[in-house]
Amino acid sequence: MPGAPLEFYYDFNSPYGYIGAHRITALAQKHGRTVAWHPTLLGAIFKVTGAGPLPNVPLKGDYSLRDFARSAKFHGLEYQLPAEHPFSPVAASRAVIWARGDGAEAAEKMTLALYDAVWAQGRSIAGAAATAVIAGEAGFDAEAVTAGMNDPAVKQTLLDEVDDAIKKGVFGSPFVLVDGEPFWGADRFDQIDKWLETGGW
Amino acid sequence: MPGAPLEFYYDFNSPYGYIGAHRITALAQKHGRTVAWHPTLLGAIFKVTGAGPLPNVPLKGDYSLRDFARSAKFHGLEYQLPAEHPFSPVAASRAVIWARGDGAEAAEKMTLALYDAVWAQGRSIAGAAATAVIAGEAGFDAEAVTAGMNDPAVKQTLLDEVDDAIKKGVFGSPFVLVDGEPFWGADRFDQIDKWLETGGW
Repeated sequence: MPGAPLEFYYDFNSPYGYIGAHRITALAQKHGRTVAWHPTLLGAIFKVTGAGPLPNVPLKGDYSLRDFARSAKFHGLEYQLPAEHPFSPVAASRAVIWARGDGAEAAEKMTLALYDAVWAQGRSIAGAAATAVIAGEAGFDAEAVTAGMNDPAVKQTLLDEVDDAIKKGVFGSPFVLVDGEPFWGADRFDQIDKWLETGGW
Repeated sequence: MPGAPLEFYYDFNSPYGYIGAHRITALAQKHGRTVAWHPTLLGAIFKVTGAGPLPNVPLKGDYSLRDFARSAKFHGLEYQLPAEHPFSPVAASRAVIWARGDGAEAAEKMTLALYDAVWAQGRSIAGAAATAVIAGEAGFDAEAVTAGMNDPAVKQTLLDEVDDAIKKGVFGSPFVLVDGEPFWGADRFDQIDKWLETGGW
């Protein structure tokens, strides 16, 4: 019997989420797992934790910008700091939840299209119009995406999932729950790999 | 000509520093480098960054305790959360600076003895008396260590190095400067390895 999906939480503002999104499916498949895609809103989560965007923290801010670029390239990904950052990830997150109605592959395709637009190309995905354009370029029906982002059920699902994420202890991006075990950061994927292989330690 | 030493900064309160301290020499030697051991005081650094000890942050606190244990064991190290944490690392840091007078090997030996006492055995290293006992068990002359910790020059060197660390952008533990390039976290050692191999990217 295949195990439960890896619960993958990410915010489009997070370059580490961008790295994680490109790696999570291969990691899951290696262990016979699937991925549950959960776009989330760090802004809402930071209200609980009192944290703020990394680039605004003294000393840590300069470093984080450097680490964003270095880490993306270390993992073989293109990198560009978007002109607009942080930005509202609400529309983009809704687009993923809408796409997820067609399954995990569609959710992944939407996620990577939007993440690549921001972090490989430095484009804006703030707002429904920008999101629809990028979704259209990726092969989605832009009108259907726009309708989906405006669907009250999609909007409510996003809010419910953010609340649920906070209840489950999610406080950063990417964040992966593996059979309930929490892993924070693209730099914990090596531990997830060993955890799935060994059943934990 | 051998390259410059890896500048290794760490606070004894940091379990990730404990992991890093056990791995930095092998990493340096792999690339023909040595290690410059810089015990530092996160308490002073946090006054600049506004950060606080991880275990005190909402949501992140519970996770961090879990990640401390999981990460240490992932790297094959014993782990125990010390009863007293955070604690003053001043005496222990002075002991390392004193030992460093005999070279990097002595600094490493003192560092690992003190780190293992805290993070493998859960013992206290707060204060000169506790530090001298552990240093003595590790083969140092406990009386000489005590005199070293009280040496005004050793005390001043620690303060100067903390100021210098802040000037160089050090804000966490472990923190490694590789030919000026900053790497934060035991989870960046894979990037340091590739950086030293390739000359950067």
